[in-house]
Amino acid sequence: MRCAGALDVRAVPGVPVVRPGDDVGALVGEALARAGMALVDHDVVVVPSKVLSRAEGRFRDLAAVVPSERARALAAQTGKDAALVELVLEESSAVSRAAPGVLVVRHRLGFVAAHASIDASNAEPLDPPPGTGPWVLLLPLDPDASAERLRAALSARFGAAIGVVVSDSLGRPFRLGTVGAALGLAGLPALWDRRGDRDLFGRVLEQTVTGLADQVAAAADLVLGQADEGYAAAVVRGLRFRPGQHAASELLRRADQDLYA
Amino acid sequence: MRCAGALDVRAVPGVPVVRPGDDVGALVGEALARAGMALVDHDVVVVPSKVLSRAEGRFRDLAAVVPSERARALAAQTGKDAALVELVLEESSAVSRAAPGVLVVRHRLGFVAAHASIDASNAEPLDPPPGTGPWVLLLPLDPDASAERLRAALSARFGAAIGVVVSDSLGRPFRLGTVGAALGLAGLPALWDRRGDRDLFGRVLEQTVTGLADQVAAAADLVLGQADEGYAAAVVRGLRFRPGQHAASELLRRADQDLYA
Repeated sequence: MRCAGALDVRAVPGVPVVRPGDDVGALVGEALARAGMALVDHDVVVVPSKVLSRAEGRFRDLAAVVPSERARALAAQTGKDAALVELVLEESSAVSRAAPGVLVVRHRLGFVAAHASIDASNAEPLDPPPGTGPWVLLLPLDPDASAERLRAALSARFGAAIGVVVSDSLGRPFRLGTVGAALGLAGLPALWDRRGDRDLFGRVLEQTVTGLADQVAAAADLVLGQADEGYAAAVVRGLRFRPGQHAASELLRRADQDLYA
Repeated sequence: MRCAGALDVRAVPGVPVVRPGDDVGALVGEALARAGMALVDHDVVVVPSKVLSRAEGRFRDLAAVVPSERARALAAQTGKDAALVELVLEESSAVSRAAPGVLVVRHRLGFVAAHASIDASNAEPLDPPPGTGPWVLLLPLDPDASAERLRAALSARFGAAIGVVVSDSLGRPFRLGTVGAALGLAGLPALWDRRGDRDLFGRVLEQTVTGLADQVAAAADLVLGQADEGYAAAVVRGLRFRPGQHAASELLRRADQDLYA
């Protein structure tokens, strides 16, 4: 697999705010067609996980959550809302770090994220009953499966072998600021393994495995305004990859091999 | 600051392999001019740190390094080459994690990286004396200063207010594969702070600080072939930012505030 010398990263305008039950593949496909953005082979469509969460109705009303004793204790330790902590625990398999202002967990899907990536912005249903909320959004149930449905729908619509990345913005150790990451994917490899290639001097590369899908998510994050624009998808054009069946879990280091777990 | 709805990420063809003492700003400027890629306001030029290391002559011959006792002990613990470990220690302020196959340190510049980001690919001088090597490359001495020199030279040449990112590919906890990161920068903010903006429903965003320069580095990494192509620079066009004085250290979490340090 090789990457081309130029990439075009473009937000898809005109996708409406998604409601529970919406067919995201159809909405994105229609928006692409209206914008004259027909997909071609090797295009990668990046959709923020939040869009799929909204389609799946993953809204939760914090006022309706009854925190467990464990959640209340962890809320006291971290200074977080106990109802939010309860949802974080329900979404997680383990607590990675808890301290005042910090709650990082291993999500049931395997990745490590603050608050299990439960989101409080753009997390409100379009028609919340009076007196409800504040609302939050849980991640989609199966981002790889969501990506595969989008891939199948958009590949069929445009007659092109495309890839799909379901993205989120994650914090990270050591460095400030969130960066885009792939929580689900279909049609493209998660990693770009260049081990065995040779450098300019003929020396065989030993340790060059690139987080391809994460970097695609990061590039798309630069154009996917999370608030004022409200873009629901981006297209990354110019990558070269061998289409195939892959999963975002290819990006996850095993916990028992992670010295920072 | 806002990002536009479209980004163009393009490798700069025709930069020769850099030698010690080369003026990288002049070489990249000439290559841009030859390729008809005149820079405009808000363009960000991304240059891999390795290119600047070569210009600074940061080559080291592992055969000429005398490992300290501490380096030999750490080499035995990790299974790494003792001469390489000696250079890693000289470049670092602290060891973050050491285990069989793993040596992660805090570089003297403040960021956390395996092997202090000392590189063994494309690390050979163009004319190594016979019988020397294997060679490795240390990072540039002051990536922010290198970025500022590039920014000044390229801004003057093209009459445009541009940004520069000095990039590297870093591994990370939890996730496999390297991703682009900003080790130095000039002219653009390292972080994009959107706290105080409102979401689609008018709710004020509380925790949205994006690792802008790291995401720019990740996008550029998708086009900067590290071996077969040997591109020495990329241009990211389409970002909107307020030009100003910034440093890559804005991206670094303080060690005493990092639960993973």
